[in-house]
Amino acid sequence: MGSTILTDLLTEILIPVAAVVGIAFALMQWLLVSKVKLSPERSANNKNGLSDYLVEEEEGLNDHNVVVKCAEIQNAISEAGATSFLFTEYQYVGIFMVAFAVLIFLFLGSVEGFSTKSQPCTYSKDKYCKSALANAGFSTISFLLGAITSLVSGFLGMKIATYANARTTLEARKGVGKAFITAFRSGAVMGFLLAASGLLVLYITINLFKLYYGDDWEGLFESITGYGLGGSSMALFGRVGGGIYTKAADVGADLVGKVERNIPEDDPRNPAVIADNVGDNVGDIAGMGSDLFGSYAESSCAALVVASISSFGVNHEFTAMCYPLLISSMGIIVCLITTLFATDFFEIKAVNEIEPALKKQLVISTALMTVGIAIVSWIALPSKFTIFSFGEQKQVKNWELFFCVAIGLWAGLVIGFVTEYYTSNAYSPVQDVADSCRTGAATNVIFGLALGYKSVIIPIFAIAISIFVSFSLAAMYGIAVAALGMLSTIATGLAIDAYGPISDNAGGIAEMAGMSHRIRERTDALDAAGNTTAAIGKGFAIGSAALVSLALFGAFVSRAAISTVDVLTPKVFIGLIVGAMLPYWFSAMTMKSVGSAALKMVEEVRRQFNTIPGLMEGTTKPDYATCVKISTDASIKEMIPPGALVMLTPLIVGTFFGVETLSGVLAGSLVSGVQIAISASNTGGAWDNAKKYIEAGASDHARSLGPKGSEPHKAAVIGDTIGDPLKDTSGPSLNILIKLMAVESLVFAPFFATHGGILFKIF
Amino acid sequence: MGSTILTDLLTEILIPVAAVVGIAFALMQWLLVSKVKLSPERSANNKNGLSDYLVEEEEGLNDHNVVVKCAEIQNAISEAGATSFLFTEYQYVGIFMVAFAVLIFLFLGSVEGFSTKSQPCTYSKDKYCKSALANAGFSTISFLLGAITSLVSGFLGMKIATYANARTTLEARKGVGKAFITAFRSGAVMGFLLAASGLLVLYITINLFKLYYGDDWEGLFESITGYGLGGSSMALFGRVGGGIYTKAADVGADLVGKVERNIPEDDPRNPAVIADNVGDNVGDIAGMGSDLFGSYAESSCAALVVASISSFGVNHEFTAMCYPLLISSMGIIVCLITTLFATDFFEIKAVNEIEPALKKQLVISTALMTVGIAIVSWIALPSKFTIFSFGEQKQVKNWELFFCVAIGLWAGLVIGFVTEYYTSNAYSPVQDVADSCRTGAATNVIFGLALGYKSVIIPIFAIAISIFVSFSLAAMYGIAVAALGMLSTIATGLAIDAYGPISDNAGGIAEMAGMSHRIRERTDALDAAGNTTAAIGKGFAIGSAALVSLALFGAFVSRAAISTVDVLTPKVFIGLIVGAMLPYWFSAMTMKSVGSAALKMVEEVRRQFNTIPGLMEGTTKPDYATCVKISTDASIKEMIPPGALVMLTPLIVGTFFGVETLSGVLAGSLVSGVQIAISASNTGGAWDNAKKYIEAGASDHARSLGPKGSEPHKAAVIGDTIGDPLKDTSGPSLNILIKLMAVESLVFAPFFATHGGILFKIF
Repeated sequence: MGSTILTDLLTEILIPVAAVVGIAFALMQWLLVSKVKLSPERSANNKNGLSDYLVEEEEGLNDHNVVVKCAEIQNAISEAGATSFLFTEYQYVGIFMVAFAVLIFLFLGSVEGFSTKSQPCTYSKDKYCKSALANAGFSTISFLLGAITSLVSGFLGMKIATYANARTTLEARKGVGKAFITAFRSGAVMGFLLAASGLLVLYITINLFKLYYGDDWEGLFESITGYGLGGSSMALFGRVGGGIYTKAADVGADLVGKVERNIPEDDPRNPAVIADNVGDNVGDIAGMGSDLFGSYAESSCAALVVASISSFGVNHEFTAMCYPLLISSMGIIVCLITTLFATDFFEIKAVNEIEPALKKQLVISTALMTVGIAIVSWIALPSKFTIFSFGEQKQVKNWELFFCVAIGLWAGLVIGFVTEYYTSNAYSPVQDVADSCRTGAATNVIFGLALGYKSVIIPIFAIAISIFVSFSLAAMYGIAVAALGMLSTIATGLAIDAYGPISDNAGGIAEMAGMSHRIRERTDALDAAGNTTAAIGKGFAIGSAALVSLALFGAFVSRAAISTVDVLTPKVFIGLIVGAMLPYWFSAMTMKSVGSAALKMVEEVRRQFNTIPGLMEGTTKPDYATCVKISTDASIKEMIPPGALVMLTPLIVGTFFGVETLSGVLAGSLVSGVQIAISASNTGGAWDNAKKYIEAGASDHARSLGPKGSEPHKAAVIGDTIGDPLKDTSGPSLNILIKLMAVESLVFAPFFATHGGILFKIF
Repeated sequence: MGSTILTDLLTEILIPVAAVVGIAFALMQWLLVSKVKLSPERSANNKNGLSDYLVEEEEGLNDHNVVVKCAEIQNAISEAGATSFLFTEYQYVGIFMVAFAVLIFLFLGSVEGFSTKSQPCTYSKDKYCKSALANAGFSTISFLLGAITSLVSGFLGMKIATYANARTTLEARKGVGKAFITAFRSGAVMGFLLAASGLLVLYITINLFKLYYGDDWEGLFESITGYGLGGSSMALFGRVGGGIYTKAADVGADLVGKVERNIPEDDPRNPAVIADNVGDNVGDIAGMGSDLFGSYAESSCAALVVASISSFGVNHEFTAMCYPLLISSMGIIVCLITTLFATDFFEIKAVNEIEPALKKQLVISTALMTVGIAIVSWIALPSKFTIFSFGEQKQVKNWELFFCVAIGLWAGLVIGFVTEYYTSNAYSPVQDVADSCRTGAATNVIFGLALGYKSVIIPIFAIAISIFVSFSLAAMYGIAVAALGMLSTIATGLAIDAYGPISDNAGGIAEMAGMSHRIRERTDALDAAGNTTAAIGKGFAIGSAALVSLALFGAFVSRAAISTVDVLTPKVFIGLIVGAMLPYWFSAMTMKSVGSAALKMVEEVRRQFNTIPGLMEGTTKPDYATCVKISTDASIKEMIPPGALVMLTPLIVGTFFGVETLSGVLAGSLVSGVQIAISASNTGGAWDNAKKYIEAGASDHARSLGPKGSEPHKAAVIGDTIGDPLKDTSGPSLNILIKLMAVESLVFAPFFATHGGILFKIF
């Protein structure tokens, strides 16, 4: 089959260069953020090298006390809260990871009875491939590498976010535009660092592994799938642990503070306020960072492993083989240009420009990326090649693969905009939910649940169409690159996503530092836009998770040498129905965990209000540390059962029931989980924004429901509280459930295919 | 293959005899209920032929005014409310049914271009079968028969329930035991009438069709599947329309009456109170009757159509062919004996004996039925026979088929008891939910949702195990008879189920007639037990729906001549994921409908309280009729979109995308829908009983949360209100969604197989 325009040498150069550019850009953004000084010695203005005459207003710029206070609070959130929690979490997860790494080695090594002899390759029977034991070893290494990269991504994200939150607060004194830039740049730091380092580590790993594997690309890329498993396993604990942490604190703080004591959100008198702000960083930042890194790693691994048995792999066409990595490299460059539109080409001057600016980021990156995909498809692919499709060979043209990637990319945009429609209070769905608060919390919940269910329809059609098109054009490889397409603008997506919790924290710091109401209004405006973009980000994450896990599922089926997954066989059907149940089981666990942890938090907060004299009057400081400890302990303890459910299910099913039943489980959990994930995250987002809609009172309708403290507002607060665990714990964790089970099955496929299905063998 | 012990002649006699015995038993029960006089001329005691010295207490027995008032209220519920609503509903549904009948005829007639020529049979190529046009005609006739039988079942159920409600109230004056017997007997009237008439009509139809079809059993039993489609279509509108009616009224009445005005439930001053009581009858009685009739008809049809292509059908072994009908006949006899345990062998004397008595009914009927199945399997089946299993022949022994039916039956019991565990306030799950009300409505909702999700686990395993065993033993025929096994004790199930709403109504009438608080307490106790049994009944309905629709799905696949439904083909996978989305779409519609209708009801009730002078003081009567009209109009209008979604989806998918995609849709909606249905119905049941737990205050824990009007109680009321549409509208309607799409696909299979998949043919 034809050669590619891009030479292998150039490919070897371009990928690391793109990654390094990405990292450099991230550092540059960080440098710009760091110009906002948190040390009180110097005045904080005249940063960014911009002259200050555009600044709308300067407020208390020379009040050194405020700066000191902000620095103190930031330190409490960052060091005492987030860092210490993450270290505790990583200790537990570290033990687990090592244990699981041993398991991987033992299971995969046992496939050929720990023999070190080379074996005939699976797909090129005339060649010899490395031993199963070697694959076991390298899979274990790539698993650990993935886990560590994911861990570092999450941790750095948290560090940057906690570095930026107080700086955003301080910048908010100068106006909403300055604050926006600071928060957005910090988000970009995280986005680019994660996208670029994920690419770089993967690239280096492939090249190092190649030193050993040589011509055995089958074994090479099979071992590389461990990278996806590692990334995703870490993401699971990050999302679940962080999600429980943040929502236990949030729900606990709100139930006593807002509902019982009638004090504002983030009031420093609330003992759970630090825990709440820590939660945003460990859940929405570190958890989400790990999650999206996992998606990225998995979709790359899925595409690579499928490609390794296509004509690229068989004929050792390196450039074409690296197509997934080249797409990601292009993505970094595209996102870099896109970011400049938000930070340099235009300037935000008013509150109502924020949301359009963020939405513009999505549209610009998607449009530019479409061109980028076309270029990569043109230069990096031969004009025709063959793909291995469940035992058959399928011929694919390069422009067909372009369509696969592009349809994934655009499906992501559609999902993003539908999510925005259902969760932004600018449109009727959320306004209807707000209106239903007139008749109390019950109708609010009924309408909110119905909204979430309804919001599933178009995203599912978008996913179904992309699956159909990409599958028809290029079988499972098409699905894998479609997923990659949806994730190709991940740097921008993450920047937008991370910006929300940073603004949220900035508002909290403003409140706690006793800054003026105007500052708080500005950060609230940033936060409101962040709520919608967070929902959009979750939509992307779920949509890509669906595609990724289907691609992984396809790769698993190929590797386990199953030719059909027939629903009409009992083995598969019971897998399907039990798989469809798993997301419910998982959600039950995570929601109950949040509920129980929140109850404990409520009791502690109540206890402090009741027993610490002078707390309500603001003369005594509350005991923040105990609340932080409650959240930490609860999340560490409670992340184990759901984590075990997800990690053990594929092992148990594969070992005892075999690959057919496991295929059913994967398909069932995928088609069921994606629905719950979308509806949970949109229901939660809608409730949150319905509450904000009433609070903001921007229209006659909204004012008729308000103000804060009115009966409809109270009903809206109840909805918001219910939505918290849905949108930030159980919903987003479900992405990981479906992806992780698929990638785990893929990694263990050789074991299951050889030794699996014990129960059926006995009976 | 071997002959059967039971001769064909005896089979021809035994089935109608069992049906007639069932009907006679129902009439006898009705006669006993009718001895409670609602006309004020005579005193109401000394009924049942029992001496009265066992009666615990006699209260106001000679107060003729009370009797007159009860009769008046009963008349308002029965005539002005339920009957007039059902007539309106039936008019609309009637038009739909006729239109759909025409569609069936045209679609199926077009398969062979409306030719009247006989065709070679599908499974016995050497024989000639009747023309497709004849099958079209007879399918249409059986569709209409099914619809009419379902309609009559629902209507008679409602008539009996409204006949019994006031009588139960009057009997409650004499004690809880008397009231229980009256309510339970009335439930039994409905249960036996429905089970027996469903069997009888099916039996007569088969025999009449045989006059035309003669030896062409393939065509005969294919046409009979229309009976299931008719029954289920009617059930859809009954469940959805009735569900919206009852919950709009219930939610509307509660939100203003209980929450805003602080008047008790069923207070005659509440303008929506009559509508609320009507709702119980049109939703929980007529709707549920149609639903279970649909399940029964479908599982029988599925078993028959699968059997018709087995060795029974090919060799024309009539007795073995009638095995499903013989199982149902045995079911009637078993339930008859079981009923005597509740009404004659033992007597209820105290409140706490009610729930055990009802549970005993389930256990007794299951135990007896196991013996019954063994007998039928022994006498009505040859010792060995072959089953057609997706292109292959599978040999089955008679005891293997016994296991299939029995495992379905026992899985039903397991589901029933798990449902009870999660919804009865005697156990910790509901008590935990009640406890979470301490911290307000939000935690109550979070815990309730988590409970519902968790309650899915064991039922799904029970369903999965029955599917695996019955499928392994006897392919799709095994699944069909497992479903039949679960439904074989339908008469008892319905009696238990119907008893709840009758007691609920009885309480309402007592309140409205101004009877003493003690009477109300007695009916409340009956009602609380009824809540749990209603949840159990729903569990049964969902479990059997899962099995039935899988059996129908299998029959569809056989009839559409598909040999595999491979998840790894894009056509099937997009069907699977879109199918899994449909229950969400459907639930969004029905929940929003209840919400909107409830909002209208709230406004009307508020308007009446605000504008009618003397209403709150009880000196003026409210305008009940307007509220009844709001519920009627809303449910008629709102049942159309969800109805259209369910009815049109198989037609659109089959016609445009073909049978493979349709298979995916059916599998997806089945595995996803069953989860939502179980969780929705259990969440709702748990919230309802958590509220009742606090109200009853039977333990220290419960008292610490109460009394009525306390903050935890208010939170519990919010949960209860949210649960209403979940457990009585969207949840139970999902059964019908999954069954109906499957049976509709089965009926239209020849059309889809011939003319379907237009879109894929074009591209």
